Amino acid sequence: MAVTLIDNVNVMSMDPCQTDNGIERQTQLWIQDDKILAVGSPPAPPPVPDHHIDGTNRWALPGFIDCHTHLVYGGSRADEFRQRLSGTSYQDIARAGGGIQKTVRDTRNAGAEELLQHSLRRGRRLIEEGVTTLEIKSGYGLDQQTELTMLEVAARLGSQLPVNVSRTYLGAHTLPPEFEDDADGYIDFVCHTMIPTIAAGKHATAVDVFCETVGFTRAQAERVFAAAQQAGLAIKLHAEQLSDSKGAVLAAQYQACSVDHIEYLAADDIPMLAKAGCVAVLLPGAFYYLRESKKPPVAALRQHQVPMAVASDHNPGTSPICSLLTCATMACLEFGLTCEEALLGITSHAAQALQLSNKGRLRAGMDADVCLWDIREPADLIYEINGFRPTCRWVGGQYVDG
Amino acid sequence: MAVTLIDNVNVMSMDPCQTDNGIERQTQLWIQDDKILAVGSPPAPPPVPDHHIDGTNRWALPGFIDCHTHLVYGGSRADEFRQRLSGTSYQDIARAGGGIQKTVRDTRNAGAEELLQHSLRRGRRLIEEGVTTLEIKSGYGLDQQTELTMLEVAARLGSQLPVNVSRTYLGAHTLPPEFEDDADGYIDFVCHTMIPTIAAGKHATAVDVFCETVGFTRAQAERVFAAAQQAGLAIKLHAEQLSDSKGAVLAAQYQACSVDHIEYLAADDIPMLAKAGCVAVLLPGAFYYLRESKKPPVAALRQHQVPMAVASDHNPGTSPICSLLTCATMACLEFGLTCEEALLGITSHAAQALQLSNKGRLRAGMDADVCLWDIREPADLIYEINGFRPTCRWVGGQYVDG
Ligand SMILES: [Zn+2]
Ligand SMILES: [Zn+2]
Repeated sequence: MAVTLIDNVNVMSMDPCQTDNGIERQTQLWIQDDKILAVGSPPAPPPVPDHHIDGTNRWALPGFIDCHTHLVYGGSRADEFRQRLSGTSYQDIARAGGGIQKTVRDTRNAGAEELLQHSLRRGRRLIEEGVTTLEIKSGYGLDQQTELTMLEVAARLGSQLPVNVSRTYLGAHTLPPEFEDDADGYIDFVCHTMIPTIAAGKHATAVDVFCETVGFTRAQAERVFAAAQQAGLAIKLHAEQLSDSKGAVLAAQYQACSVDHIEYLAADDIPMLAKAGCVAVLLPGAFYYLRESKKPPVAALRQHQVPMAVASDHNPGTSPICSLLTCATMACLEFGLTCEEALLGITSHAAQALQLSNKGRLRAGMDADVCLWDIREPADLIYEINGFRPTCRWVGGQYVDG
Repeated sequence: MAVTLIDNVNVMSMDPCQTDNGIERQTQLWIQDDKILAVGSPPAPPPVPDHHIDGTNRWALPGFIDCHTHLVYGGSRADEFRQRLSGTSYQDIARAGGGIQKTVRDTRNAGAEELLQHSLRRGRRLIEEGVTTLEIKSGYGLDQQTELTMLEVAARLGSQLPVNVSRTYLGAHTLPPEFEDDADGYIDFVCHTMIPTIAAGKHATAVDVFCETVGFTRAQAERVFAAAQQAGLAIKLHAEQLSDSKGAVLAAQYQACSVDHIEYLAADDIPMLAKAGCVAVLLPGAFYYLRESKKPPVAALRQHQVPMAVASDHNPGTSPICSLLTCATMACLEFGLTCEEALLGITSHAAQALQLSNKGRLRAGMDADVCLWDIREPADLIYEINGFRPTCRWVGGQYVDG
């Protein structure tokens, strides 16, 4: 049993039930092994701490949780980005073999080791800013072997870096070339071959679908959800990013843990999300890179008390950003979140989106994923882009310098 | 004499006269003492390198230049930011003593040591991304002692961190409380007391003015320019950020090295800037934080071949961002720059804005401010926010790891 006491520290617990995000100043934070033992006084008799850390003028916050990323992929789309800014049209880029199909090819052609090396580089950047849990989706392999490789690389990321990785199977991301003109045939493969394999091998804990005019239909999403439900996997959805496809309604019917993007979500559909306990995951990075103007219905989500999370959506096509905190700032500036909402969005609400009930808050019994920050107030982290790094952190109770 | 050879390296020289920003692949870069000795073959007879670095699959670019910052200040405006996002109006914040006057008070109340510590923290963040030259303005002290302290702190930043610092006196930033209702009296003080003192003590090499409806008038700016010109200091201007005050025209008449912001610059005024050799400094950070919609006239600037630079404008009120590369990405996404223009904007054009003719390009005889990057293409740096850090750098020929 190893006990750490962080003394005289300011704590923002991120408990959504407490006021002010659970701020307590000049208090104690106790860690025992891999759990939070106490915020404030420890249970009597107080243990003798093995490590004693002075928290004076510092803030302890839960480690940040990036609950929606596509971090593992081959190649880069920087050249497309460059070409688009120089005036080349989307159509010309697609005609030249660009877009998501390029990433699928590059991912299939990359070995696991190459995928790992590039993902490690990106993962380090995210983690450096205080991220201790990362969701990673498959979806650029599409065939069985490459999807499993992506998920395996995601797991290796979690063992090589001080970060918890939560894995999602996103087979229904785009149609692979071998199923051209046969989307339903591909969905058969996803439902009958892939989902049972993923569940049996515990390669992922959730299943996601890209439901959109340019993605899969609602009917196809429903087939995937039914298969996921039967296999005991959690459900989430890329929904209402570019149009109102009513994917969120379907997701709510299937008790999805989150609906993500939702710029075009209709206000009428929000009570269903609230009732289903579904988290609304806002992805301002893609909104920014794509120069979108339609914003998610934040006021209505707030009114119906739908928990809002914020994630990087890191992906090579529409959100190549390695900074969850910058996305949190964007969510405030672009979508009108408050600083408090943005911080909840990358802690407790993000944990809820991943169904990680032991993470995202500082409270006795929760996982000891904690960052210590040399800041005046937690709002500093949202206000100043790229301004701060944790002075140290604990991930599952393991101390990490920086 | 110390000679370094970086072998088999891809170079983007950033010479605006070369095509493709001066890309040469798998070439050599030679550094001798504090200067670039050669890109490609060295002069005969080739020197024997003391240090030999393998540049395979790496890119050498000039160190980045952030040509417009207000990096030295006391306090934080995070709480105002938080309040505004929670619905408090600008007026209520100003009435409660917020806004720029808060930063003036906090800066006056901070000791030099405290200013230095906070500026070091912010400076480190900027530098980490490959910045090797930083312009820093005064302008939150306004009285003689605090302005000189700010400039002294800026100089200490340059001696404590691996970065060149270029200093600008921005006395005419806002009206100090002791000159309330007497802007002309304050401008007298700026022109007759401060500018001669700054010039005599070499506390700064340039003078800047905030010319705006909420700042100083064109007539006042002209008085400051005349005093600066007489004192032999370079001239620059915060112009046309929120309205078309015709400050840029005035700046061009005074051969200013740059006009900065210029969202409201009239197309008709651009030929004058071109003729005066004035650099247009774009500041997308402030544009983003302020939720502005009027964009600088990039197409017209391009057409008239006015060099465009991009800077962070780091300041506590309107652009609290510590990432020049993110600002470069923003300049592409918000203002329509190409990747190539964005890279020129943080290298050779930024050097031109600071009249640092030996910086911002990789060419024999230029200062050896060089970063080495483990990237596929230079566009990677603009495409991926927070994605990359230099593997190593040379600042004035001094090797720095990272
Ligand atoms: Zn996504
Ligand atoms: Zn400025």
